[in-house]
Amino acid sequence: MSENVGFIGLGAMGAPMAQNLIAAGFALKVHNRTAQKADPLVARGAQLAQHPQDAVTPGGIAVTMLADDRALEAVAMGERSIARRLAHGGVHISMSTISPHTARAVAEDHQRHGCAYVAAPVFGRPEAAAARKLWIVASGSQAAKDRVRPILDAMGQGVFDLGERPEAAHVAKLAGNFLIASAIEAMGEAFALVEKSGVERTAFAELMARTIFACPLYQAYAPKIALHQYTPAGFRLPLGLKDVQLAIQTAGEARVPMPIAGVLRDRFLAALAKGRDEMDWSAIALGASEDAGLK
Amino acid sequence: MSENVGFIGLGAMGAPMAQNLIAAGFALKVHNRTAQKADPLVARGAQLAQHPQDAVTPGGIAVTMLADDRALEAVAMGERSIARRLAHGGVHISMSTISPHTARAVAEDHQRHGCAYVAAPVFGRPEAAAARKLWIVASGSQAAKDRVRPILDAMGQGVFDLGERPEAAHVAKLAGNFLIASAIEAMGEAFALVEKSGVERTAFAELMARTIFACPLYQAYAPKIALHQYTPAGFRLPLGLKDVQLAIQTAGEARVPMPIAGVLRDRFLAALAKGRDEMDWSAIALGASEDAGLK
Amino acid sequence: MSENVGFIGLGAMGAPMAQNLIAAGFALKVHNRTAQKADPLVARGAQLAQHPQDAVTPGGIAVTMLADDRALEAVAMGERSIARRLAHGGVHISMSTISPHTARAVAEDHQRHGCAYVAAPVFGRPEAAAARKLWIVASGSQAAKDRVRPILDAMGQGVFDLGERPEAAHVAKLAGNFLIASAIEAMGEAFALVEKSGVERTAFAELMARTIFACPLYQAYAPKIALHQYTPAGFRLPLGLKDVQLAIQTAGEARVPMPIAGVLRDRFLAALAKGRDEMDWSAIALGASEDAGLK
Amino acid sequence: MSENVGFIGLGAMGAPMAQNLIAAGFALKVHNRTAQKADPLVARGAQLAQHPQDAVTPGGIAVTMLADDRALEAVAMGERSIARRLAHGGVHISMSTISPHTARAVAEDHQRHGCAYVAAPVFGRPEAAAARKLWIVASGSQAAKDRVRPILDAMGQGVFDLGERPEAAHVAKLAGNFLIASAIEAMGEAFALVEKSGVERTAFAELMARTIFACPLYQAYAPKIALHQYTPAGFRLPLGLKDVQLAIQTAGEARVPMPIAGVLRDRFLAALAKGRDEMDWSAIALGASEDAGLK
Repeated sequence: MSENVGFIGLGAMGAPMAQNLIAAGFALKVHNRTAQKADPLVARGAQLAQHPQDAVTPGGIAVTMLADDRALEAVAMGERSIARRLAHGGVHISMSTISPHTARAVAEDHQRHGCAYVAAPVFGRPEAAAARKLWIVASGSQAAKDRVRPILDAMGQGVFDLGERPEAAHVAKLAGNFLIASAIEAMGEAFALVEKSGVERTAFAELMARTIFACPLYQAYAPKIALHQYTPAGFRLPLGLKDVQLAIQTAGEARVPMPIAGVLRDRFLAALAKGRDEMDWSAIALGASEDAGLK
Repeated sequence: MSENVGFIGLGAMGAPMAQNLIAAGFALKVHNRTAQKADPLVARGAQLAQHPQDAVTPGGIAVTMLADDRALEAVAMGERSIARRLAHGGVHISMSTISPHTARAVAEDHQRHGCAYVAAPVFGRPEAAAARKLWIVASGSQAAKDRVRPILDAMGQGVFDLGERPEAAHVAKLAGNFLIASAIEAMGEAFALVEKSGVERTAFAELMARTIFACPLYQAYAPKIALHQYTPAGFRLPLGLKDVQLAIQTAGEARVPMPIAGVLRDRFLAALAKGRDEMDWSAIALGASEDAGLK
Repeated sequence: MSENVGFIGLGAMGAPMAQNLIAAGFALKVHNRTAQKADPLVARGAQLAQHPQDAVTPGGIAVTMLADDRALEAVAMGERSIARRLAHGGVHISMSTISPHTARAVAEDHQRHGCAYVAAPVFGRPEAAAARKLWIVASGSQAAKDRVRPILDAMGQGVFDLGERPEAAHVAKLAGNFLIASAIEAMGEAFALVEKSGVERTAFAELMARTIFACPLYQAYAPKIALHQYTPAGFRLPLGLKDVQLAIQTAGEARVPMPIAGVLRDRFLAALAKGRDEMDWSAIALGASEDAGLK
Repeated sequence: MSENVGFIGLGAMGAPMAQNLIAAGFALKVHNRTAQKADPLVARGAQLAQHPQDAVTPGGIAVTMLADDRALEAVAMGERSIARRLAHGGVHISMSTISPHTARAVAEDHQRHGCAYVAAPVFGRPEAAAARKLWIVASGSQAAKDRVRPILDAMGQGVFDLGERPEAAHVAKLAGNFLIASAIEAMGEAFALVEKSGVERTAFAELMARTIFACPLYQAYAPKIALHQYTPAGFRLPLGLKDVQLAIQTAGEARVPMPIAGVLRDRFLAALAKGRDEMDWSAIALGASEDAGLK
């Protein structure tokens, strides 16, 4: 527990993750763009850093949990980057959902400064983060992964290793979110079908979630979609579009046609065109109901 | 256990289901178009009926597990139908995957002969049928459902009641199969994406099936799709197309647009255009790999 | 002009087509389910037949222009069919938009009665029918096509020969209507894009119709779609769905995936789910605008 | 004809366009990244400029016809931009197919230097450019458009004015290319349908191009798609993908779902995954044939 850990990005996910690190005994320096979000962590002993670089110690460990590629690039590359402070022997645990393309660029830049890039995006919503129930997907150099393993363990219920390529875990995260969004859309269509054919949406949703689809994902989403409960948002709709766009962009670079991804993109755009920015991303399921004349 | 049960349709699903009825102590008369499929059942005490009608007793119970709407209509309606033999007080447990439209027509015809129609399609493959692990979805008049409950219990691990409308359970079956096929297609696309982005298909498949999608459906299909193992078929591709077409037809009558259903239909047609009739329906996932230049 | 011609089906298309036959000097017997639609033709010398069969003479010529497959089957096959009256030496000019499947069945039935089937569906709206501007696509035995050529010439501005197979012209008609519907949908999407990007829909529509798409189809539809003018209907939305469904069904039998056809089907269903039965089929373009939050 | 015109970008389109300006009597300075492409123009009197900026005169006119947004930004913005040389009173005629987003950025930058931005993308292939048959869509300040009108007239057969917004003409260009690609895909699907249903692709293509789709676009593409003739390329497949991606990106920013655009994107990706980079963009039509098992 002697590691110096800098934690940057204290949003809905980052804050409870940092709490778990404190609970596990790590000494944290924390940074967030709007500083007051750090208050609860400071109250529990974390030190507040005014600048991302200040949260980091040479040869130490940085954790980032940020909104998007741009936010990560701003922190991880350039004149006042965490990489320059981490420098030789440092490790950056990159937990944001970002493009593989950006991950590679950041990892190469890190290499020039002598520090390591460990990709470690997570599956799970804020409640899961708070309950230390996240699933963590990791990739990067074996030595760096070994070193940061206790830190990852302190934040999740399991770590999956996808090898040494810096972008691998990010690819898996985007593909996983695509699978989730696909399941949401499929439920939206199926529930509209049963409803308009005279079967209760909720009864059908329960049937599925208790039998062939008896897994956390369907159990979490099926009842809410059946009842069209999309607020409060666990994961806001514009963020869902961002992730689907990242998957589509990655698929475009790799030349992988993904017809369901196109369907998803259009659903997200239609939902935003109707002003559903504050709803949960599962609100794309409203589209199927509306197209069927149900709402 | 004093019920007289006629079981009609001894295919890959029907045969093990009938075996379970015998194991539970029911006296069965069985019929199948090609009679020798009845041999193992006859060996265990079932009586062979030359004609569907002969398997049925006035006021008794008929179970049908047939290939499609046409096959059911041939058995359930017309001059020599089971309905005419069942007559007043009889119950027909209709377990095939058929259109809600046909279910209504058969149920109405039954009513004229005084017998009841209980829809009871199942989720599960032949192994699940043999292991008495089917999930059964039922709808129909309450009295009839109550009477046949011991029979359903003898074939599955759970029965879900969707009310009194004769077509309701069939709607749920089609919507459920649509959800499964959607999950298969989504895996096909996601696995092609990760593979072409440098991540092992099998590692990603395992990650998903052990975490957010830890349910029977993904656990059964993800490893096979990751390895492109599509033979021997648990459920043949042309049958998958049949079910997707039934869902689309039902959606068309109800005016429910289902964009993923359109994607699925095209995948099935492309697979059949390439001669994949003997493969499992999950072989539609080959389409995403081929479109990505991977196969 | 000595041919005895029976004309069956005096709807929005059939009535002006029959008028042109009279104008060309043909002696017509006419039939329509609701007889008063025949009045204007009777006023110009046509004889009214109470039953389809009565409109037809042994060895003569029958023209049918009916709503769908079912309507044609009722007239063309069975106990009191026109085929039995036409009998040896008769020719049936089948101009309705029907499935190739039905065309084959009717043609085979005709053969048993000794009469010939000439498929001759048309492209053009009621105005074009009145102005003798229809395009006619024909297929069937060469001798029969040669014999009826003057009749076809009297109804259109050009006849295209697609060989001897009875269903060939019907395939072309369905494929052509698919192309038209695809163009309508593409315009709907493109116009929504330009509108929401600050360009006048009407200006863009005019630009396209005067340059790269300077053809009757775009010139007829582009201005109306740009202004969202969908009434009065030249071709009602439910008929458009019928034709797209026939194309999809034909594609399904031939194992031809058609992703745009799936998009079209969903647009038609959504439009009907919103009660647009009385609008022109080009009203599917409303869908793109609504999805973009424009209507 | 006293205008000083600098022409930058002498590719398959730019070279013949510049030739037409010389033919019309304009004195040209020309620049191209690979200088030898300028040889034929120099032979006819054009002056060769080593750097884009050198092709331009203060207060004069610059024409750019470049590969993409990046190429235009490199020439039009920054330290050694044409805008700095054009300066007050200069006009930049921007004829490349670029994103509306980039057009706005360039136009705003120009304004700071006192020069005007006239968007003027074109419809037409290299042959049309050589034959002065391009259709030109223009937008920008009225005064600037009036001044450059003779230059535009010397390159095309017609100019369409879409108002004063700098991005308007670029939006129209992307929407127009989307319409063309949609027509190509629709033909690909329709031709596969007729072929597999026993009708000659070429006969159906001719029928369409001579009747309801009797316009340059279909007449140019239908015969080639019918015969699967995709080389030599008039417009290479990767450029087609670029334009469809720009349309999708613009639609994304404007929140406009475009389902056909998603279908197109997948077709382009599949074609490139199969190595069809050197084919014409109409080769996306191969996809429909392959999916149908025809190739």
